[in-house]
Amino acid sequence: MLVSLPALAGGNVADGQSKSASCAACHGAKGQAVNSIYPKLAGQNADYLALSLHAYKKGERSGGQAGVMQAFSSSLSDQDISDLSAYYASLAPLK
Amino acid sequence: MLVSLPALAGGNVADGQSKSASCAACHGAKGQAVNSIYPKLAGQNADYLALSLHAYKKGERSGGQAGVMQAFSSSLSDQDISDLSAYYASLAPLK
Repeated sequence: MLVSLPALAGGNVADGQSKSASCAACHGAKGQAVNSIYPKLAGQNADYLALSLHAYKKGERSGGQAGVMQAFSSSLSDQDISDLSAYYASLAPLK
Repeated sequence: MLVSLPALAGGNVADGQSKSASCAACHGAKGQAVNSIYPKLAGQNADYLALSLHAYKKGERSGGQAGVMQAFSSSLSDQDISDLSAYYASLAPLK
């Protein structure tokens, strides 16, 4: 059965999920980061997620894991960022 | 009745709550930011919250609302950061 998934902040949840494999290594399979130095993404506001990814891509964040995030985000298009943000915002924020 | 609250990442939840008034203006009364350009903080990993506040304080984040966060975090001690991080991590991550 095909289901039309909701879009958030111009993003497509299903497309975001398909693009999220690299993210899951640190942020968890469902956006529930186990290592507490990484943020949980599940249920986070989509607009904030998109702003953060754009900030990493533009090199506006440094220190800590920012270099890793800049490397990952450098290859993301605006649509990729919208899709990933919609996907993580759509997940249940379980602890 | 006095209750001993748990400490997370060296922080004290009750002390963090008492220091959180300024944060609530944008991040919500219980860490549930209503305006989606701001991140929800409720239930976020305490270590990540602390790392983020230290990064803002050190000027390692720019663009967007980073200037506002740098201003707020500039007056926070290491203990303040630990307490605030413990407090927000302790809150239920309701959507």
